[in-house]
Amino acid sequence: MEKRELLYEGKAKQVFLTDDPELIIIHYKDDASAYNNVKKATIEGKGQLNNQISAIIFKYLMEHGIPTHFVEQLNDRDQLCRRVKIFPMEVIVRNIIAGSMAKRLDIPEGTQPANTIIDLCYKKDELGDPLINNDHVVALGIASYEELDEILDMTRRINVLLTDLFKVLGIKLVDFKLEFGRTSDGKIVLADEISPDTSRLWDAETNEKLDKDRFRRDLGKVHEAYEEILRRLTK
Amino acid sequence: MEKRELLYEGKAKQVFLTDDPELIIIHYKDDASAYNNVKKATIEGKGQLNNQISAIIFKYLMEHGIPTHFVEQLNDRDQLCRRVKIFPMEVIVRNIIAGSMAKRLDIPEGTQPANTIIDLCYKKDELGDPLINNDHVVALGIASYEELDEILDMTRRINVLLTDLFKVLGIKLVDFKLEFGRTSDGKIVLADEISPDTSRLWDAETNEKLDKDRFRRDLGKVHEAYEEILRRLTK
Repeated sequence: MEKRELLYEGKAKQVFLTDDPELIIIHYKDDASAYNNVKKATIEGKGQLNNQISAIIFKYLMEHGIPTHFVEQLNDRDQLCRRVKIFPMEVIVRNIIAGSMAKRLDIPEGTQPANTIIDLCYKKDELGDPLINNDHVVALGIASYEELDEILDMTRRINVLLTDLFKVLGIKLVDFKLEFGRTSDGKIVLADEISPDTSRLWDAETNEKLDKDRFRRDLGKVHEAYEEILRRLTK
Repeated sequence: MEKRELLYEGKAKQVFLTDDPELIIIHYKDDASAYNNVKKATIEGKGQLNNQISAIIFKYLMEHGIPTHFVEQLNDRDQLCRRVKIFPMEVIVRNIIAGSMAKRLDIPEGTQPANTIIDLCYKKDELGDPLINNDHVVALGIASYEELDEILDMTRRINVLLTDLFKVLGIKLVDFKLEFGRTSDGKIVLADEISPDTSRLWDAETNEKLDKDRFRRDLGKVHEAYEEILRRLTK
């Protein structure tokens, strides 16, 4: 399968058409951005690491019954995936409070809430990806209440599966972002990626950050942290 | 029943204790504020108008089965109410998109959504009363999921009742804010006020604003607009 026309270029990935209208190739770049594109850099080798990490996680989720867009890893930086229509919404799961939620609601980072928190954000750069609720999702035409219920059910199942996966590897799954899409035959599937770019992963013993916060907060050793996640996932 | 110690002073109201520990007196002031207290003024006679308007609306809701804190109107500016513990959360119902939601999501004011939208905001001035979702309500300890369900069910019933009430008066109920409290015996009741200070009310024919937006946006004739609402409610 070869790359044809560039369909879409995001901050960390490119999406190419293929000769099969149902399939796309996702190419993982080394570019990193944070705070709605205010902070940018290139992290040498990040693309290869995230491509591998995300492929392993998506395969694990599919083995446990989660439908995804993933077909196969083609090479170091490319994945073959089903073409889907993305719901323009980020679904963020928070098991421990950190990042924007800690700041927005003035809660100390690291606080363990009594419940699992799911945030929905409208994917719209010019508005700064604002937090929305279920009613806004429907009013904005992003999804129907029924589709949203299906997405949220799947999200809760994914959270249980990923929390288990990372626990065994000595990692706390603090939070992570999901995106969903609809296939041409109307099925809702998990899309995009799951990697240290899109999650917060803390070492269970030391609470050392092994994710994109090392880049956001200039903590150094970004590449090493991503490598450590891949090392634990493949050992 | 006489006013004793001042229990709480808000932007537009004072709350006094009485000799009965279960009862408070709410005093309606002429003070107006907007944009989280950035804009302030005094609107002569507003307190009297809102006291009467809110009393009429609360009596109407109680006649239709909604439990509230309202006991009786004592005089021009004072209401006797049950003392409740307020859930620190604003419940905003939007039938037509306007105000902060229009701005935040870049939707033209006046847009009619396909669904009724309920926003929850954390009552915390220093954070700017941020939008929150159901999971945040529970994580912040504002209410349990069960209590929130009860509040949202009551909110939907109130919306139907108020939409009907205002329709007959030639007024579009664009949006409104509710607050709820818990009585000493654990019952959840509607509290605070419902008035042109806490709602958007547009003339059904002309779309003329008959609410606090006249003050927020310097449209003039603020007092006259509130008087017009009271006139229609009492005719």
